[in-house]
Amino acid sequence: MSTSFEIEAHCGAARAGRMTTLHGVVETPVFMPVGTLASIKGVSQDILEELGVQILLGNTYHLYLRPGVEQVRQLGGLHRFMAWPRAILTDSGGFQVFSLNELRRVTEEGVTFRSHLDGSSHFFSPESAMQAQIGLGADIMMAFDECTEHPADRERTRQSMELTLRWAQRSRRYFEQHKHEVPWATDYVGTTNQLGPDVPVWAGERALAGGVEGKTAELRSAGQVRTPAPTYSGAAQALFGIVQGGMDPALRKESAERTSEIGFPGYAVGGLSVGEPRSLTREIVEATLQHLPVDKPRYLMGVGTPEEIVAYASLGVDMMDCVLPTRAARHGLLFTSEGKISIKQARFAGDHGPLDANCGCRVCRRYSRAYLRHLYACNEVLAQVLNTVHNLSFYLDTMRAVRHSIALGNKAQFPSGEQTRAKP
Amino acid sequence: MSTSFEIEAHCGAARAGRMTTLHGVVETPVFMPVGTLASIKGVSQDILEELGVQILLGNTYHLYLRPGVEQVRQLGGLHRFMAWPRAILTDSGGFQVFSLNELRRVTEEGVTFRSHLDGSSHFFSPESAMQAQIGLGADIMMAFDECTEHPADRERTRQSMELTLRWAQRSRRYFEQHKHEVPWATDYVGTTNQLGPDVPVWAGERALAGGVEGKTAELRSAGQVRTPAPTYSGAAQALFGIVQGGMDPALRKESAERTSEIGFPGYAVGGLSVGEPRSLTREIVEATLQHLPVDKPRYLMGVGTPEEIVAYASLGVDMMDCVLPTRAARHGLLFTSEGKISIKQARFAGDHGPLDANCGCRVCRRYSRAYLRHLYACNEVLAQVLNTVHNLSFYLDTMRAVRHSIALGNKAQFPSGEQTRAKP
Repeated sequence: MSTSFEIEAHCGAARAGRMTTLHGVVETPVFMPVGTLASIKGVSQDILEELGVQILLGNTYHLYLRPGVEQVRQLGGLHRFMAWPRAILTDSGGFQVFSLNELRRVTEEGVTFRSHLDGSSHFFSPESAMQAQIGLGADIMMAFDECTEHPADRERTRQSMELTLRWAQRSRRYFEQHKHEVPWATDYVGTTNQLGPDVPVWAGERALAGGVEGKTAELRSAGQVRTPAPTYSGAAQALFGIVQGGMDPALRKESAERTSEIGFPGYAVGGLSVGEPRSLTREIVEATLQHLPVDKPRYLMGVGTPEEIVAYASLGVDMMDCVLPTRAARHGLLFTSEGKISIKQARFAGDHGPLDANCGCRVCRRYSRAYLRHLYACNEVLAQVLNTVHNLSFYLDTMRAVRHSIALGNKAQFPSGEQTRAKP
Repeated sequence: MSTSFEIEAHCGAARAGRMTTLHGVVETPVFMPVGTLASIKGVSQDILEELGVQILLGNTYHLYLRPGVEQVRQLGGLHRFMAWPRAILTDSGGFQVFSLNELRRVTEEGVTFRSHLDGSSHFFSPESAMQAQIGLGADIMMAFDECTEHPADRERTRQSMELTLRWAQRSRRYFEQHKHEVPWATDYVGTTNQLGPDVPVWAGERALAGGVEGKTAELRSAGQVRTPAPTYSGAAQALFGIVQGGMDPALRKESAERTSEIGFPGYAVGGLSVGEPRSLTREIVEATLQHLPVDKPRYLMGVGTPEEIVAYASLGVDMMDCVLPTRAARHGLLFTSEGKISIKQARFAGDHGPLDANCGCRVCRRYSRAYLRHLYACNEVLAQVLNTVHNLSFYLDTMRAVRHSIALGNKAQFPSGEQTRAKP
């Protein structure tokens, strides 16, 4: 058993679906908040649950460095480590290593890079990146790819795309041989209730264990047995492929087709949002999507603004992630139904109205713009906490509205991209 | 109407009571978390409510500098500004200015000091400190005092004590003449529901307004009228006096008696925890308390560790405040039923147990020591948030246990000070 995907409604090219993972259902199109180091910066997991986050993203590169994959694996995997019972996706580390620039060297075998923390030397190959992601134990893991730099000429782009295809095959091969090593398969943590009563015995894990050795699993759930489950039940993570091909529609088509031939339960569009104009991003997304299997989830990596996530959902993208809502929050940039605002501005110092009168989040229900402005101006930690909660709420509300519109078959009712442009 | 105080149970010198403010009841002995800049660093107000915080402290010096008293006053006072419907106490600014050391100059008239932010020059007198605190609109405000440095000889200590007594009289005089200027008396904010449905129409304010002009107040509560309440109803803040006298029991006695003669609804013991040995602190507290009116709340300022707040409650102290639980949390120092621990230590990296198995707070219910250690080691903002929630929970639980023991008349059941010493 792995992740499954069902499309429930169409509206033009857009689709609304349900991705079922061992850690719960993810309704698509979905925006995935980024929890780089096993934490959405400043926001506790119960608030994420309240916001309706169904899946979040962890960065393999960062988790590999701190606390280390083996540490997370011994603690039962990312879900248990961060006390997050819902779905998780990890990236392959490829993009993060790509963004290290000076510090990396790419060969056929893999990438040698230096840690941004202490300069120490490390090596990621398709095999080691899969090993790391299996140890982290996310529901969805990503093939190891090379994110082609921009700009790149056609020859360089082709070479890079071919490398990514070879790495995709190696990723898949390693994954198939080692997927039983996911930490869910044995009970490293010991007993579930050591994590406390608020952490449920996760439905997926219970089902998994129950299918193999019901009674022991039951006892283990009750905290009475500490022995590891002796056998592997067949439950596994899902490994998604990544399409590259730079800014060349023909190479994108080829990459999409050849990646599909390798065969994955889901496909990502990588190598975009790397400095190219937005109109080109859109063109390449469209050129790629049409060559991907219609019945598999499509994940556009690293996108985007509220306008963009709406626009790409309308093109048929099912999953997106971006640091924008959380990073912008830390800089006092807040998305509202009346446009993006910078809460640091002096004009908010005496403004007793809510941040967004059309938002029902716990921040807008309680606090004034004046208070949020004060917290930000004083560099109070609560500023980051509240700003992040609001921005995530705005993104998740936007995606909920998109899903609703698709279910109604009414693309005209998609939330307007206009809403997030600041008024003059 | 101002704050009232009723003692409900005695146990030796200890008392359990209820302080009734316009913003709710405060059960004593109480520990008051410090929200320097109108925020308990990293913790949102709804979590503070969940923890059972009934009163918190704001620092006049800091709020005077940012966002400024007039800004807070125009926004309806501190309660509305920070969306905190329960009780608030503000200090006078005296202690903060005292701790600026090099940057201050004391005369009979008041204190000239330089801002720690930009070096700009400011002046606090008893009158201006009262004006600031009336503008902030806390339920309890403090007389302007000089915190005598330690060590100080007897003559210097007497002079300083005499100055504080003269300032206490000036504080009281200004307060009586101006207490009707508290922002609750008029509706600066406009309508209460602009703060959102989660902020109740505060019982105290409704009673206040209802007593004067019921219908308009009712309409104003409903958000239908924006006109300010035209008259002052008589509701007011409470102004507490502060006892000084350094480390000299005779001067403490004299200060306590002469401050009581001026007449306040509550009394603080100031000038302690300024570097003297703990045994001396205790001696001076005892020497002071016996000369204060038994029927008024007694507030020991700036104290202390979990052991200390238990010990001082047993001596008859009703109110305490300290930055220790919140500041220690930011340094990864956590109070548990098995002693104080430093979560940064490597031995916690693989520890899947809860921070404190005997604690029912939302942090201990959900997260492991391994996760908390990871967050701290990575300098994740969530570390500060979760650590602070736990430490505050520990302090508030400790005080609840003390109140319970007093109510039972059983001092032997006071939580042991031993519990917070680290095990060998």
